[in-house]
Amino acid sequence: MLQSYVRDTWVTPTATPASATGVRDAVTGDLICHVSSQGLDLAGAFGHARHTGAAALRALTFHQRADLLDAVATAVRDRRAELYTRSARAGATPLDARYDVDGGIRVLRDYSARARAELPDAPFLVEGPAERLARGEDFLGVHLCAPSPGLMLQVNAFNFPVWAPLEKLAQALLAGMPTVVKPATPTAYLTEHLVRIVAEAGVLPPGALQLVVGSVRPALDLLGEQDVLSFTGSAATARTLRAQRNVVARSVRFNAEADSVNAIVLAPDVPPGSPLFAAFVREVVTEMTVKAGQKCTAIRRVLVPREHESAALDALASELAGVTIGNPAAEGVTMGAVVSLEQRDDVRRAVRTIAESGRFVYGDPDRVRAVDADPERGAFLDTLLVSADPDAAAPHEVEPFGPAATVLAYRDTAHATELMARGLGSLAASVVSDDLAWTTALVQETAPWHGRLHLLDSTNMAQTTGHGSPLPALRHGGPGRAGGGSELAGVRGVVDLMQRTALQASPRLLDSLRTARTPAAADTE
Amino acid sequence: MLQSYVRDTWVTPTATPASATGVRDAVTGDLICHVSSQGLDLAGAFGHARHTGAAALRALTFHQRADLLDAVATAVRDRRAELYTRSARAGATPLDARYDVDGGIRVLRDYSARARAELPDAPFLVEGPAERLARGEDFLGVHLCAPSPGLMLQVNAFNFPVWAPLEKLAQALLAGMPTVVKPATPTAYLTEHLVRIVAEAGVLPPGALQLVVGSVRPALDLLGEQDVLSFTGSAATARTLRAQRNVVARSVRFNAEADSVNAIVLAPDVPPGSPLFAAFVREVVTEMTVKAGQKCTAIRRVLVPREHESAALDALASELAGVTIGNPAAEGVTMGAVVSLEQRDDVRRAVRTIAESGRFVYGDPDRVRAVDADPERGAFLDTLLVSADPDAAAPHEVEPFGPAATVLAYRDTAHATELMARGLGSLAASVVSDDLAWTTALVQETAPWHGRLHLLDSTNMAQTTGHGSPLPALRHGGPGRAGGGSELAGVRGVVDLMQRTALQASPRLLDSLRTARTPAAADTE
Repeated sequence: MLQSYVRDTWVTPTATPASATGVRDAVTGDLICHVSSQGLDLAGAFGHARHTGAAALRALTFHQRADLLDAVATAVRDRRAELYTRSARAGATPLDARYDVDGGIRVLRDYSARARAELPDAPFLVEGPAERLARGEDFLGVHLCAPSPGLMLQVNAFNFPVWAPLEKLAQALLAGMPTVVKPATPTAYLTEHLVRIVAEAGVLPPGALQLVVGSVRPALDLLGEQDVLSFTGSAATARTLRAQRNVVARSVRFNAEADSVNAIVLAPDVPPGSPLFAAFVREVVTEMTVKAGQKCTAIRRVLVPREHESAALDALASELAGVTIGNPAAEGVTMGAVVSLEQRDDVRRAVRTIAESGRFVYGDPDRVRAVDADPERGAFLDTLLVSADPDAAAPHEVEPFGPAATVLAYRDTAHATELMARGLGSLAASVVSDDLAWTTALVQETAPWHGRLHLLDSTNMAQTTGHGSPLPALRHGGPGRAGGGSELAGVRGVVDLMQRTALQASPRLLDSLRTARTPAAADTE
Repeated sequence: MLQSYVRDTWVTPTATPASATGVRDAVTGDLICHVSSQGLDLAGAFGHARHTGAAALRALTFHQRADLLDAVATAVRDRRAELYTRSARAGATPLDARYDVDGGIRVLRDYSARARAELPDAPFLVEGPAERLARGEDFLGVHLCAPSPGLMLQVNAFNFPVWAPLEKLAQALLAGMPTVVKPATPTAYLTEHLVRIVAEAGVLPPGALQLVVGSVRPALDLLGEQDVLSFTGSAATARTLRAQRNVVARSVRFNAEADSVNAIVLAPDVPPGSPLFAAFVREVVTEMTVKAGQKCTAIRRVLVPREHESAALDALASELAGVTIGNPAAEGVTMGAVVSLEQRDDVRRAVRTIAESGRFVYGDPDRVRAVDADPERGAFLDTLLVSADPDAAAPHEVEPFGPAATVLAYRDTAHATELMARGLGSLAASVVSDDLAWTTALVQETAPWHGRLHLLDSTNMAQTTGHGSPLPALRHGGPGRAGGGSELAGVRGVVDLMQRTALQASPRLLDSLRTARTPAAADTE
């Protein structure tokens, strides 16, 4: 029975295995643990975060909070091998595990450096310059960004059990806000181990980090006006959380990063066989295979000009043939399993729906060869490349959350533009072109539908960090189906978690505030 | 039957007076008009905004859009007398009318100047500087803020029928976004006349401004991923709109500015009889009487130190005795009527609930002397000052949206802090003090509960623009009960209406984008 970390103590839920949810090894199907929130004192956890955790964090300056990020990064780095080993049980290859674990450490390091460089050594931020609001000199306006005396409830997806909680923790801690992590059930044991590593390092103030495994539902009714609900997962769950009665009644700040049907567009100017064309093919196959395609940013729709459709299909199929699927622990395996048999079955259903208007070009949803694993007991899937009618609905609406993508041939630029927008809001899209005018026009037309545009050309194709990688410097989150949220984006992501209050005040009071270092708040709570 | 302005044409709803809602003169009770949206082509209006309106606005630069704001300001200024006359029928004194009409003109002028000073002469904004994302020089990150190809649906409150639509129009136009205005029924005739003035001036591109009177419900299902729903009104209606099925399903951007139970705090250091004490008294009475207290920012809770309670009550009562209530057109009247008999009855109910834990210090909810008006046919109310138990629930939860406020005596600073937070999120609070350390500590403690803090002291009390006045430079909107939204805040309010898209691109592509002026979008739609 997986433990939770509540009020700085590890607690075991009161559920029996029969009343809890079993979590199985993605590779072998063996039972790993049971998950339940039964008997957990959620109200106690929230109170502890708001009083003990928030009070301690609010009293620190941004630079002192940056020290906490570094300490967490060091603690996780020292024991990352334990996380790699456990990641394999979720189907992750060593590369996938590093993407998750080292990626999380990198976000912590990046944010601690940003905070020191871009935020003051003070517990809050006064955004200036002061603006005169009246004829005299003594009535000035500025904005104060101060920590909210609340908590961030993280409701995370299964696919980044280490990166996601660390990425959110980095921004929350800098904003002076404690966090309660609710991991997704299929990989809850990985997040549990992460929290154990951080807790055992003893580097965070009491109440700054808590873990609640199991159902999130009872926690939603406990959220208040000063809290943030930070969700990563499916668009359907995002809707449910956004409309939850208490979340709505209290205007609880809600941030959603929902998986979306992301596209890559090959421009007409890129000739098949060129190095840029090869970079396009690699990008698609990487997105299909890293984390077995289980990334909310992964490419699902591959838009190619009609004249290059068959060349693109051939090149993609040929590259996919080089992928070796199987036990992530086995030599030579380049793609592991998806997280569970349920997930595998979902992907099968999704790709079949999309293929109704077309055909499978590569891979069979029902058959896969898995190295050093039983493909029936493990959650293995072949890489699945579909060619479909670009004007059908399913390729733009249905998301196979696994190693699958659909090639859609567009007629002309207007058609490509229209198809991109049919995702109704995406986290990321790639455009592959050396035609500056063409790309510039496409960017202007399609940017409002995307949180991020990854623009690949011959000059930067060797330097790209990849279509699917959210970066601390850049906004992560997209409009519409992608949830309408925003994470990362440098220190903006930190300040967005704080309350921005307009101040109308005399210069002498603003001076007093600018030199204040320790909030009285921290002492009285 | 009040007309709507749809697809650049004035249209009359198909309703009969019997099936429409009647609107009455606040002073005389006479019928002014009927309001209904029956038979209006809302889908046509929305399509016209998104295609014709958005395409035209997106093709303009920020500076060209600023020209539109100036043209609207000039058109409204030229005919503002017509709006003053009509305002009197809603119970507004000449001062109230200028607050609404001239205030709206001022926001347009202020925003046009800000746009020219702070935004580029380009249709979009590239937020830099570019950050290197990899080892090489050719993979850079910036953010592009581009107009969303959608519309802003304004759902407005009755109390600022001119200021509110103009304030939102200013930011929407600058963001390259057309707007559809849905006025509140009791003052819809004023917004209708405003839109008529703007339409007759012929200064806006087709589709940039439309008016839909009557029920908003059918419009909500027509909103899409690129639209913004901008609401001002009650916290209860904010909840309904936020949770509306289609709004949730499409992650429609929702901004709420809800009325809240705003406080003013008199600090222990301010001696009764001092000039700063007098400024405090004037501030409270101004907030109670301007617009007959019908401002979402108005002071409802007056927190005074226990030792100064009776001095505060005496001074407030004495100042209130100088208020002359009646027909706004009559000589010497300083406070008019509330907007309707229903509104009057709501206020009566609310103050009685609050007075359950205390008493009426000034005014009788059931009796009022009205100059040059029938106090039974007109929606008149006396100024109502209540003294209540600070620890009771009602003074912090119930908002009498009229000329009413409640005095609550606090024991010590911690008590005052706790009472401020019991509003559960407010648009604005005032603090009156010359004690810098005391105010600094209070600001740090209470800022997260407020959208704006108005900090009055002896040096700036003669310069203040007033507790209740939102200013273009400053954020307008507060957390929790106040709706969790943000308006104004200078050009931030404009950029917040646009889509911020992260771009990963080569320097040559960023150069191409920076020099692009006319989006291809505008030509093809």
